[in-house]
Amino acid sequence: MKEEHTALDAAQQLAATGDMETEAFRHYGYQIVDWIAEYLREVGTYPVLSPNTPGDIRRALPEQPPKHPEAMEAILTDFDRILMPGITHWNSPGFMAYFGITGSGPGILGEMLCSALNVNAMLWRTSPAATELEQVTLDWLRQMLGLPRPLFGIINDTASSGVLYALAAARETIADLHIRQQGMAGRSELPRLRLYTSQEAHSSVDKAAIVLGVGQQGLHKIGTDNQFRMDVAELERAIEEDRAAGWLPFAVVGTIGTTSTSSIDPIPHIADICEHYKLWLHVDASYAGIAAVDPDMHWILSGCDRADSLIVNPHKWLFTPVDCSVFYTRKPDVVKAAFSLTPEFLRNAESSGDEVPNLMDYGNALGRRFRSLKLWMVLRYFGQEGIAARIREHIRLAQELAKWVKEAPDFELMAPTPFSLVCLRAHPRGIDDETQLNILNERIMNRINVAGHFFLSHTKIHNQFTIRVAIGNLRTTEQHVRELWKEMQTCLTDDIKSC
Amino acid sequence: MKEEHTALDAAQQLAATGDMETEAFRHYGYQIVDWIAEYLREVGTYPVLSPNTPGDIRRALPEQPPKHPEAMEAILTDFDRILMPGITHWNSPGFMAYFGITGSGPGILGEMLCSALNVNAMLWRTSPAATELEQVTLDWLRQMLGLPRPLFGIINDTASSGVLYALAAARETIADLHIRQQGMAGRSELPRLRLYTSQEAHSSVDKAAIVLGVGQQGLHKIGTDNQFRMDVAELERAIEEDRAAGWLPFAVVGTIGTTSTSSIDPIPHIADICEHYKLWLHVDASYAGIAAVDPDMHWILSGCDRADSLIVNPHKWLFTPVDCSVFYTRKPDVVKAAFSLTPEFLRNAESSGDEVPNLMDYGNALGRRFRSLKLWMVLRYFGQEGIAARIREHIRLAQELAKWVKEAPDFELMAPTPFSLVCLRAHPRGIDDETQLNILNERIMNRINVAGHFFLSHTKIHNQFTIRVAIGNLRTTEQHVRELWKEMQTCLTDDIKSC
Repeated sequence: MKEEHTALDAAQQLAATGDMETEAFRHYGYQIVDWIAEYLREVGTYPVLSPNTPGDIRRALPEQPPKHPEAMEAILTDFDRILMPGITHWNSPGFMAYFGITGSGPGILGEMLCSALNVNAMLWRTSPAATELEQVTLDWLRQMLGLPRPLFGIINDTASSGVLYALAAARETIADLHIRQQGMAGRSELPRLRLYTSQEAHSSVDKAAIVLGVGQQGLHKIGTDNQFRMDVAELERAIEEDRAAGWLPFAVVGTIGTTSTSSIDPIPHIADICEHYKLWLHVDASYAGIAAVDPDMHWILSGCDRADSLIVNPHKWLFTPVDCSVFYTRKPDVVKAAFSLTPEFLRNAESSGDEVPNLMDYGNALGRRFRSLKLWMVLRYFGQEGIAARIREHIRLAQELAKWVKEAPDFELMAPTPFSLVCLRAHPRGIDDETQLNILNERIMNRINVAGHFFLSHTKIHNQFTIRVAIGNLRTTEQHVRELWKEMQTCLTDDIKSC
Repeated sequence: MKEEHTALDAAQQLAATGDMETEAFRHYGYQIVDWIAEYLREVGTYPVLSPNTPGDIRRALPEQPPKHPEAMEAILTDFDRILMPGITHWNSPGFMAYFGITGSGPGILGEMLCSALNVNAMLWRTSPAATELEQVTLDWLRQMLGLPRPLFGIINDTASSGVLYALAAARETIADLHIRQQGMAGRSELPRLRLYTSQEAHSSVDKAAIVLGVGQQGLHKIGTDNQFRMDVAELERAIEEDRAAGWLPFAVVGTIGTTSTSSIDPIPHIADICEHYKLWLHVDASYAGIAAVDPDMHWILSGCDRADSLIVNPHKWLFTPVDCSVFYTRKPDVVKAAFSLTPEFLRNAESSGDEVPNLMDYGNALGRRFRSLKLWMVLRYFGQEGIAARIREHIRLAQELAKWVKEAPDFELMAPTPFSLVCLRAHPRGIDDETQLNILNERIMNRINVAGHFFLSHTKIHNQFTIRVAIGNLRTTEQHVRELWKEMQTCLTDDIKSC
């Protein structure tokens, strides 16, 4: 085979060993741009939650891998025919599950450029523009959020990575334990480590505790008040009791916009406690933090100027395609000390100095996509005022829905609505059995999801099945929210009739 | 402001709160497709390593964030004018640093669709197509690589995440220690934990040991033979000695295609040792594993059928834009036991059964991009034969260069060339001082990088500065390799003259 190759003339060789031809790329590129333009215009007409059953896609695809090159037409036809029915449409105006997100036009255009450049921003020199644009863009976002400088920012894939890095850095600050060097197992002089978060915190905190070897027992979950906010008196008591029992507290994770109900932990009080006990304060504002782009909402980040680290996710409520999670820290040197390793093959003139960072030094991942490009395009295309207007509109829609729920005799609000998430359930007069209510509400949610105009998810609040309506997609308008509300009422009526 | 919003009519409101208009998206989409087509055709004409100095980009961008929406024309103009000079061109035929990669045409088209759909593949139901396509595509790749079933595959961002997950799973297999639950610190009954890898292994193994709380001392680095392969006799001796000294060995990381020299650890022997001592065997084949897509190269993965986990990176040598790192395991249940947590808001009918996996259960990250789409498009567009032909061509080019180096009196090969990486240095007759040779070779590499036609990186082998020529981009042809070789010789001549 090698001999044959050598014998090929240059043109044949290019065809056999090169990339797609320029004109073919242009042709299919246009075709896909057209497809995306139509998709974004019509996305509201697809069933939001895929109607597929397990195995549908798998069975429709060949078991054997492709031996020979296939035509792009055939691939795109299969994309439409086989894959599209298996898509749950996160970009639909009817997607109101989990937290609403948007892959916006400028964000998609940014991803196109990012994938063509295909840079790896691990070192400054491996694309100075990627490292510096990340710093500039995150400083813009810092200013938009009303946070004081200095604040070091870096983009990770997800908030799950960010909280892991934050807590690894926190562990590194524990005086004289040398965990990075000596590890944690089998060292009789080490106390047991503990970190604190509320019962409403995201499961990524649990995962970080597991990965770091702190263990689930090393994560102490603090109760919440009647608005699902961390009970700071209980936090302080827990720290004192744990210390007395021989635990070594080292960090607290507060949340601005919890996943279940979007509640806001009292960060200023938590910061007081962290300062007193010298604990690392990490704030998870993944979803809700972005709301502070509206200057009237700066107050939600109150106390975050005292946090050691903070996460906001542009891929949630800032119209940026996944993935793009922003990690801010006031202590980049500590994060770097927790992670930095420079093997010989990555050493270079810039890596020794302090003039420019090598962003691989601030986390576990070495490879880094040029994610700041899409964020930069989104921030410029919409501008701070445009972003704030969109966030205000989502909050306004949520307040409207909350008002309708409050006024409706057969429904009830299950939590305050500080942002764009509405927690509610049907509670018809005469039905007070909690088990029956749970079954009823789960049935209503499933009916709506099967109908296909909307996709909703749930939580449990005090063990009560609660429907979450998460508004956050740029295509969602007041009309969609009105239709959802009507559909909920109809589902309730139909359900009661059918029973 | 809220009152004003309510008063807006629907059309105005859409403009103020919606996404980019359909026709605008189409217009800029075409424009960017044209840009990418030209870029990919002309990428060889850019200086490969960005000539920027630290701060160039930062100073060219405004310090203040954009207040008002900006025109896409202005954004794209700044992209060209300000950012492009700061790009190091990973997609250039002259990029031969680290490991060569390609953002290929079909891969870029796949990323376009991925960013428009913007799905999060955390649960099966959040896009059945994403979960099932990931399984089917990775089973295709398994077959292409000649690996036996059953083998569970999942895509992560990078191999750094994969090795972390592998070693977290390995830690979970240690009998009765309950580290997930109880953590590692302050437990006097725990022995110190140790894992093993060679001195040539990637730094991500060090990072994983740090993050997991095993510590750098918990990572025992084993020496290598004269071909930079792990010394298995030393490995076995180290395990015995560590056990006698009270350490608990729990895992070994072998490498197929080390970063410095692309050497191949003797996996079958390492597998014997792992079976004997009941250690988790993880194989890092991030770069070189892909070569096994050529059936004549299946032998390189010999022994991997006995590995507990294995990583190959399509974003390295399989023409897929970053990021796309494939993690295979024979023990998905153990990986799941190490990570799985299902909070209420993610519970659903499918999450309880075993029919379909929820891919968030197999690692730390909750959010997951639809990365299998681009890989599926790349595998089909090139086909196994097309991929194998391209990989064979890269290996052939490397063998050619290695032959020229061997025949040249003033250069020497520094390591074997099993794949497409050539390790070499200039060693002119009469210069035998190692310090002088190190300085000379660093100067030659820097001259080449500054000249702009190629970007090379280095390593140190037995403390000797070694230039690495990593061939792996689809646009690299024999002519490029010939030009590089000529430029190296010229640089050496010029350097000697100028001294």
